[in-house]
Amino acid sequence: MKALVYEGPDKKSWKEVPNPTIQHSTDVIVKMVATTICGTDLHNLKGDVPEVAVGRILGHEGIGTITEIGSGVTQLAVGDQVILSCVSSCGRCSNCRQGPFSHCLDPEGLAGIGWIFGYMIDGTQAEFVRVPFAETSVYVLPKGTTHAQAILLSDILPTGFEIGVQYGDVQPGDIVAVIGPGPVGLSAVMTSRLYGPSKVIAIDLDPARLKRATDFGATDIVNSGDADWMKQVLDLTDGAGVDVAIETIGMPQTFTMATQIVRPGGSLANIDVYGKPIELALNELWITNIDISMGLVNTNTLAMLLKLVAGNLLPVDKFVTHEFSFDQVIAAYDVFANAAEHDALKVLIQLVDAR
Amino acid sequence: MKALVYEGPDKKSWKEVPNPTIQHSTDVIVKMVATTICGTDLHNLKGDVPEVAVGRILGHEGIGTITEIGSGVTQLAVGDQVILSCVSSCGRCSNCRQGPFSHCLDPEGLAGIGWIFGYMIDGTQAEFVRVPFAETSVYVLPKGTTHAQAILLSDILPTGFEIGVQYGDVQPGDIVAVIGPGPVGLSAVMTSRLYGPSKVIAIDLDPARLKRATDFGATDIVNSGDADWMKQVLDLTDGAGVDVAIETIGMPQTFTMATQIVRPGGSLANIDVYGKPIELALNELWITNIDISMGLVNTNTLAMLLKLVAGNLLPVDKFVTHEFSFDQVIAAYDVFANAAEHDALKVLIQLVDAR
Amino acid sequence: MKALVYEGPDKKSWKEVPNPTIQHSTDVIVKMVATTICGTDLHNLKGDVPEVAVGRILGHEGIGTITEIGSGVTQLAVGDQVILSCVSSCGRCSNCRQGPFSHCLDPEGLAGIGWIFGYMIDGTQAEFVRVPFAETSVYVLPKGTTHAQAILLSDILPTGFEIGVQYGDVQPGDIVAVIGPGPVGLSAVMTSRLYGPSKVIAIDLDPARLKRATDFGATDIVNSGDADWMKQVLDLTDGAGVDVAIETIGMPQTFTMATQIVRPGGSLANIDVYGKPIELALNELWITNIDISMGLVNTNTLAMLLKLVAGNLLPVDKFVTHEFSFDQVIAAYDVFANAAEHDALKVLIQLVDAR
Amino acid sequence: MKALVYEGPDKKSWKEVPNPTIQHSTDVIVKMVATTICGTDLHNLKGDVPEVAVGRILGHEGIGTITEIGSGVTQLAVGDQVILSCVSSCGRCSNCRQGPFSHCLDPEGLAGIGWIFGYMIDGTQAEFVRVPFAETSVYVLPKGTTHAQAILLSDILPTGFEIGVQYGDVQPGDIVAVIGPGPVGLSAVMTSRLYGPSKVIAIDLDPARLKRATDFGATDIVNSGDADWMKQVLDLTDGAGVDVAIETIGMPQTFTMATQIVRPGGSLANIDVYGKPIELALNELWITNIDISMGLVNTNTLAMLLKLVAGNLLPVDKFVTHEFSFDQVIAAYDVFANAAEHDALKVLIQLVDAR
Repeated sequence: MKALVYEGPDKKSWKEVPNPTIQHSTDVIVKMVATTICGTDLHNLKGDVPEVAVGRILGHEGIGTITEIGSGVTQLAVGDQVILSCVSSCGRCSNCRQGPFSHCLDPEGLAGIGWIFGYMIDGTQAEFVRVPFAETSVYVLPKGTTHAQAILLSDILPTGFEIGVQYGDVQPGDIVAVIGPGPVGLSAVMTSRLYGPSKVIAIDLDPARLKRATDFGATDIVNSGDADWMKQVLDLTDGAGVDVAIETIGMPQTFTMATQIVRPGGSLANIDVYGKPIELALNELWITNIDISMGLVNTNTLAMLLKLVAGNLLPVDKFVTHEFSFDQVIAAYDVFANAAEHDALKVLIQLVDAR
Repeated sequence: MKALVYEGPDKKSWKEVPNPTIQHSTDVIVKMVATTICGTDLHNLKGDVPEVAVGRILGHEGIGTITEIGSGVTQLAVGDQVILSCVSSCGRCSNCRQGPFSHCLDPEGLAGIGWIFGYMIDGTQAEFVRVPFAETSVYVLPKGTTHAQAILLSDILPTGFEIGVQYGDVQPGDIVAVIGPGPVGLSAVMTSRLYGPSKVIAIDLDPARLKRATDFGATDIVNSGDADWMKQVLDLTDGAGVDVAIETIGMPQTFTMATQIVRPGGSLANIDVYGKPIELALNELWITNIDISMGLVNTNTLAMLLKLVAGNLLPVDKFVTHEFSFDQVIAAYDVFANAAEHDALKVLIQLVDAR
Repeated sequence: MKALVYEGPDKKSWKEVPNPTIQHSTDVIVKMVATTICGTDLHNLKGDVPEVAVGRILGHEGIGTITEIGSGVTQLAVGDQVILSCVSSCGRCSNCRQGPFSHCLDPEGLAGIGWIFGYMIDGTQAEFVRVPFAETSVYVLPKGTTHAQAILLSDILPTGFEIGVQYGDVQPGDIVAVIGPGPVGLSAVMTSRLYGPSKVIAIDLDPARLKRATDFGATDIVNSGDADWMKQVLDLTDGAGVDVAIETIGMPQTFTMATQIVRPGGSLANIDVYGKPIELALNELWITNIDISMGLVNTNTLAMLLKLVAGNLLPVDKFVTHEFSFDQVIAAYDVFANAAEHDALKVLIQLVDAR
Repeated sequence: MKALVYEGPDKKSWKEVPNPTIQHSTDVIVKMVATTICGTDLHNLKGDVPEVAVGRILGHEGIGTITEIGSGVTQLAVGDQVILSCVSSCGRCSNCRQGPFSHCLDPEGLAGIGWIFGYMIDGTQAEFVRVPFAETSVYVLPKGTTHAQAILLSDILPTGFEIGVQYGDVQPGDIVAVIGPGPVGLSAVMTSRLYGPSKVIAIDLDPARLKRATDFGATDIVNSGDADWMKQVLDLTDGAGVDVAIETIGMPQTFTMATQIVRPGGSLANIDVYGKPIELALNELWITNIDISMGLVNTNTLAMLLKLVAGNLLPVDKFVTHEFSFDQVIAAYDVFANAAEHDALKVLIQLVDAR
């Protein structure tokens, strides 16, 4: 089969590799019909993550058709169209049964977390993928759901919802601020509306991104390059501060911005991957009764979000700005790596005959 | 009347001052029968807090008898024995009605938080105290409750319970670690048992404090001076990490310790007052799905805890290690300020004829 | 002033009565600008409720302008435009501080519940009203909010939301069924959308009511007169049953219908006033893990809902189907009492010069 | 092997039957070391339950040693000592992943609920048992846990805790009433203490049962045969009513008793199996804001409770009042069926050489 292989720092190729095979009784093999690229893939490609060995197939998002099932698999069948969760979970260990679901104790003896595709094991940017613990890690695609809808459910939509909206504890009537309306930030903007907020404020330096945020459900926008950006945000809250600040950039400055706009008793949810420690002003914040959360998506809401997407209640297809075939995957990386230049959000990479 | 007055940095005196009078229709005047000293009082005395003006009466904990009521007070009467909450709340503003209760929007136009005794207005280390918003800020003492029991409810017991145990979301079966078993830490140790933990681990450098922690409900102790302290803690959790880490010291090192022992998906509750910012290793922690909380006590559980204390279900009287009369208040400060030397926890300062 | 007075079973008159006066320091007097009629008013008029004495002014919903304040009132002022909650709460008793807010322990020595307007004390269908515990029982009207919007917040919208949607624990992705899309049922339909359901099914015998339900947010309708109504509902849930059934009719048959369509582990929320006991098939239901709730509105979400209404996020003005002036109140009752005939939902009764 | 076989209404025998064998890749075979008898077994024996076919092996509680594993089982091994949950769950269906866990959608095509042992498939009163979905239906026994402790965890202790205490939402400081302190009622009494109640009131007609309840954690007892029993209960709550009433008898009268003592806003948790419908006085209760729950145990807290039992924090061994060997199982039924006469709670039936 063909797959996108990591060849060392900043090197990748779409090339012929052996097909995957069933290794455990709980595995299935999936013929991929669509995949996409995530910011983490770019990070892995740089060579910064030692666990990503040369030869590793990249990618952790995708949809496809089951072509083979392990002997212990009874609730999935060859021919099922499925969405692959970016997080693999065995469904049996204490973390899978009690949570946090993303921290599967992992009897494959790998990372100690559930995210292993394109990281500890071969990933989804390939014609075929071996999916471990399939019965608790894939979701059957409802009829009528498009690839552009379904591909969002592998990672980006549950991430915005679980780690931003739910960890941030958005409640009806709340004022929510989302710092950084990129793909994950826009997922938080869109899914925050599932809890009936009174305002969703998008905050960013880029006017084009802010404008797009209003298409995804932001009620108000604030340019953080403005000298009085903080006053603009607080004015939208009658001076009280936002109920929930969702931070998606992962920089010390944006973290601090979030602490400055959240009201006493409010929540600060970090969806981002941070590259270095930040300074937390506990000397000022200890008295504010705020709550700070963070984490890797559990995808325990994937099935629920899929129900809303299938019912056309979440217009996720607007995330896909560019489409490619599998053999154009290198071009797709170029577009995604230069997203601002191409006004790109998510790229959909799919089988030509599956479109 | 006599009261303990702040006379400038490191200076205080027990001296004659005018009696307080009703200023608002929601005020009551209370003749104090007992008070105590808190770490914050020592802090204020140093002169570090500009809001504490020379001439301010210190203290924010106490019990007493109502001697006068404002015209708008209908549910309290002269003669009622009451506990004063350390937090004043008007009961009408949005924060008092929806929470956080400690952040009363404060129509007296003062601090913008509910803690004002001994800080923004005259405090409780006095023979008489004016109590604002009395109907929503005092609690009638049940018969049979002793001064040594009741005095704990003004601040220390609700603080350990609300900011440590409840913000930390202790659940039945959890393993809880409390870093720093001083008065507030021991409140968290004792009240954590209200949620049925499987273990409560006290962590400290001082063997005497650790030994005492076992009297207050700790099931295990770990000396953080030991080179392998972290391994000792993790071994008590079968390597998984504690479900809830409660930090009460307020130092960067102890905050970091807490982040090192909490399990993925667990909680880190800060009860302490921090003097400077800390470094938060979000580069390592972002993937751990932990939750970090902090805050000023709301005292919304004071009535509930009082019910348990009155039923002798929480042995809080063991917090009082030393007793003084009001005119010995300076001596009481000496003992409390040198707590380790005197093996002191809380000092009870009371009317001679009330004992 | 003029007021609508209960004159005995099925008798009422709009007549001259003495103006109300301040009786307690926490009272205010409000000059009414709008009121409406509720099903409970019709019930009281029949003479079935012995607590409703001859001479009682009817009504418990309304908006108006404060004309006088008691000596203990500091956070409201003469001239404030306010919404009156149908539930009076002192804000100080244990139920007001810990919940249930609708069960104020009532220092006026009245009903033992918070709903007293038009029942235990004179109500709101009058030119002036005395409002007890005003600071915790009225809400200042934001600028730009219309009477037709605001009048819904006294009772009907919080009732549908709190007792239907919140007690029923609607969650994102849920399938919700509302039996009886009258005014309260439509409130539940509309506000259920604040929790992102995947479907909201309206169930009724009347095609006109069902058709209207789709304007208020129902995604599906089922006529319970159809022989296969239950199959129609279950088919909408893939056979699993609805997550939340909200019953608003108050008849044994409709209660039983609700138990027949709720899934294992689901919720049945009763918003209705029942006139007689019902049979509960615990022999079949004990194993279903369902939850049954009921109750009087607390109005603790009134301020939050008002924020959404003021932001035009809840189109509540469509509830008002007929408008009257105060001196047409008898005609308004005729229309409301024969709602089906007039295709009426809520009638708005207002000052001529306030329109 | 030997097993206790249902031979028709009121007939059973301990006789030789074929050993069970692995049928699905997720099965294990367990050699039983201990089992016990539940009230449901007596019910099934009477012949009232048509699903219980002649020839069915009875029983749904037990502990044993794994002797064989299916090909899909990777996290359990031959030789593991395990507790069998009374509820079988596949761990993969939507109910197993989202709850209610007791309503496994059951790919064996059986009952549509998770309780199948001794009902839809052969049970645990046998020398060997086939356990379906073993990895999500058994729990490895910690070293040092006795049979008398562990046997309680199959059903009775999780039932009292989940369906009584958790569904009843017991909170610190609450006053809890348990009607019927039999085995399940005493489980609720004992485990309610995990949420720090201020009082636990046992209510029963039998003075001997009431006396025993105090050994299991009841703080107060009321004999419901007393004419003023209700006043006695209300007096213990200062007239307010209990926060949580847990009903374990399953009779219309005891259900009504529970509704009469619960406070406004409180909870009524039914743990019992009802044989006929009850009358629910919604005409009186609609305004009380109470919540009524019921259900089959999920055993999702089994692992947590096991941790507390293993730490000797729940003295469950006192439930076992009588011990028998496997070949005395008929005698054990005689004692359990006449529990009052023998002052029996739970009977422990075990391998002679396992004691």
